[in-house]
Amino acid sequence: MADVDFDFRTSHENGAARLGWFRTPHGTVETPEFMPVGTHGIVRGIAMDEVAAAGAQMVLSNAYHLYLRPGDRTIRALGGLHAFTRWTGPMLTDSGGFQVFSLPNHNAVREEGISFKSHLDGTMHDYTPESVIRIQRNLGADVIMQLDELLPAGASIDASRAAMERSLRWLERCRAAHERITREGRDPIADLAAPPGAPALATQDPANANAPAQALFPIVQGGTHPELRRASAAGILERGDWSGIAIGGLSVGETKTDMHATLELCDAALPRTLPRYLMGVGFPDDLVEGMRRGVDLFDCVAPTRLGRDGTLFTPDGKTQIKNTSNRTDRGPIVADCTCPGCTKYDRAYLRHLFVAREDLGLRLLALHNVTYLLQVMRDARAALRAGTFTAWSDAWLARYRAADDDA
Amino acid sequence: MADVDFDFRTSHENGAARLGWFRTPHGTVETPEFMPVGTHGIVRGIAMDEVAAAGAQMVLSNAYHLYLRPGDRTIRALGGLHAFTRWTGPMLTDSGGFQVFSLPNHNAVREEGISFKSHLDGTMHDYTPESVIRIQRNLGADVIMQLDELLPAGASIDASRAAMERSLRWLERCRAAHERITREGRDPIADLAAPPGAPALATQDPANANAPAQALFPIVQGGTHPELRRASAAGILERGDWSGIAIGGLSVGETKTDMHATLELCDAALPRTLPRYLMGVGFPDDLVEGMRRGVDLFDCVAPTRLGRDGTLFTPDGKTQIKNTSNRTDRGPIVADCTCPGCTKYDRAYLRHLFVAREDLGLRLLALHNVTYLLQVMRDARAALRAGTFTAWSDAWLARYRAADDDA
Repeated sequence: MADVDFDFRTSHENGAARLGWFRTPHGTVETPEFMPVGTHGIVRGIAMDEVAAAGAQMVLSNAYHLYLRPGDRTIRALGGLHAFTRWTGPMLTDSGGFQVFSLPNHNAVREEGISFKSHLDGTMHDYTPESVIRIQRNLGADVIMQLDELLPAGASIDASRAAMERSLRWLERCRAAHERITREGRDPIADLAAPPGAPALATQDPANANAPAQALFPIVQGGTHPELRRASAAGILERGDWSGIAIGGLSVGETKTDMHATLELCDAALPRTLPRYLMGVGFPDDLVEGMRRGVDLFDCVAPTRLGRDGTLFTPDGKTQIKNTSNRTDRGPIVADCTCPGCTKYDRAYLRHLFVAREDLGLRLLALHNVTYLLQVMRDARAALRAGTFTAWSDAWLARYRAADDDA
Repeated sequence: MADVDFDFRTSHENGAARLGWFRTPHGTVETPEFMPVGTHGIVRGIAMDEVAAAGAQMVLSNAYHLYLRPGDRTIRALGGLHAFTRWTGPMLTDSGGFQVFSLPNHNAVREEGISFKSHLDGTMHDYTPESVIRIQRNLGADVIMQLDELLPAGASIDASRAAMERSLRWLERCRAAHERITREGRDPIADLAAPPGAPALATQDPANANAPAQALFPIVQGGTHPELRRASAAGILERGDWSGIAIGGLSVGETKTDMHATLELCDAALPRTLPRYLMGVGFPDDLVEGMRRGVDLFDCVAPTRLGRDGTLFTPDGKTQIKNTSNRTDRGPIVADCTCPGCTKYDRAYLRHLFVAREDLGLRLLALHNVTYLLQVMRDARAALRAGTFTAWSDAWLARYRAADDDA
């Protein structure tokens, strides 16, 4: 039995792609869908009501950053990540493992877990399968992720096998910790002071009353080695009855061919009754290619990071707001885009804001990219519903790639 | 006759303070009022619709920054500053003189004007009374300012007299240039290219059809020397029938006592039939003290600059969002404030955003300060209307100063 009534259903299929939905304590998510990333409990530069207006159904927050600052226990005392950030819809937290493994000076990984030095103040911390579950439980997202061991692209097959197998052992410990907390409730938090007159903090919930059910997602690893990916998928399925399964370790430097082959292998190896979440993938064409290979959920910082760098997604590929032609262009970035940058302003003003390094420019450009990705997902769902997804995605990819600045 | 039907009227007086309004081609402004400052055609970090939602009636843009980038002729070709920025209400531009005189390496001032080196690329530029009028006419704000000569605080009386007298001569040249452009129309702009498919640029307007009337404001100078201020005011009044008069050269390092004495002197020296605009003043208590001395219009970057630095205006003085007590405070910055930061979020989250250097935090804090100043002005107008302004301002100042962090 799955750990929460997540209840993933599909209604339409086109090749490997499918239209579906799943339920969470904070609402239903129609799939396939893209999740904007809120690193510090906020999608960079964008307010949660702007993210909602852009059409986002679900957002991702980074447990690593929130664990360090303001602290997962502080967030829990303030009512959890939903109350803290004012995002009222479904939310997912990653385990923080990706950030920790990306730190330049993380210590050697041990079976127990991984030690690391905070990028903020140099203090030492430990991540274990148990601690990342405790942290994510304090944050209170609807979907939480296991701790897994990550390797850089190009790792040897032996190293990849060892990391994949350790990730399976860590998954067991995550599941046990998750079940224990669900059964016994969370540890009390008693040492936080609130200023006089402020509302009381939620430092005690022995009955676990304030902790809605969470779905724990395992992560398929194994690099670009087919036999390791198959073994990882099989090992995960042996270890529980999951609500959804993530595919990790892609978009880390491998070729597109390898990424696509791995997605096709995972599509075959994973049950079609569960949603598949491809971690850290968020360029428009990668989303379309992923959906064509049975992926239901995506996240990436690319739309905000590129937008703040002036790179904009359009149906005809990426473009750069700094282009001289935009200096006197009173048209929008994308003619039928519903974002504030496209409906209220023009390229000339957006270019001016960007060149002047005005925060509003960075915000509008990032919000355009987020809006655009969410529109691609809506268009894909409409095509799935209409049974035209395969032809739609062929035409979409051909147009996007014909004129992309990178092409 | 004034140069435009500006039509300032007052309806209530309380001591030297008065309630009034003036008309512009883009709408009516109720006074006394504070203008948020949009340096690059944008109030830093805040969208124009957010500025409007905060209750702003009129905004200020800096001709210096816009002249350098994207260029006043580009903005005119794009339809003017209103079309460019999407601010539909009344707008004022300063002449750019304040920025030029603030540059570390501006050349010696000559009778003709002032040469300066762009802070962006080091190119040399000249500001003359004629060029600042041409620039401001291209930008198209409702109220434009004369070029005046500015001195640092503490300048000798001889230097102050010479600068004040030169400012009067420059005023005459500004007025002549303004009248000539109004009569003959603006020079055509013919060398800008727009990308294919973009709307045509407004490069030609020989009939001046796209140039609504503008009111030119002179500026009273003379430092803190009473006889020079009186001579400046008299010289201005001899030279034309103005729509409004600015008071410059204050808030540059002089004592509060000197500022207040100068304002009282100007109140006596200027006709009560014209609105008085105190340039560059925008701390809450300075606004209240200014209104008590007959000032009708203010502008300042203080609310955005301080907000982005975490310093927040409250009825009990300034406070700092980083204060440790805010870490677990689920209350708003100011209980009855209508800004998004106070109505949607709490101090704990705003502190988190600020500490994490998230742009949303800087935006919300700046917007709080802008909203707060506009609320002070609304409260002041309500007190003027009720005939209780003097008592209201006494109580306001006592409360603000009793607990201010600076006190």
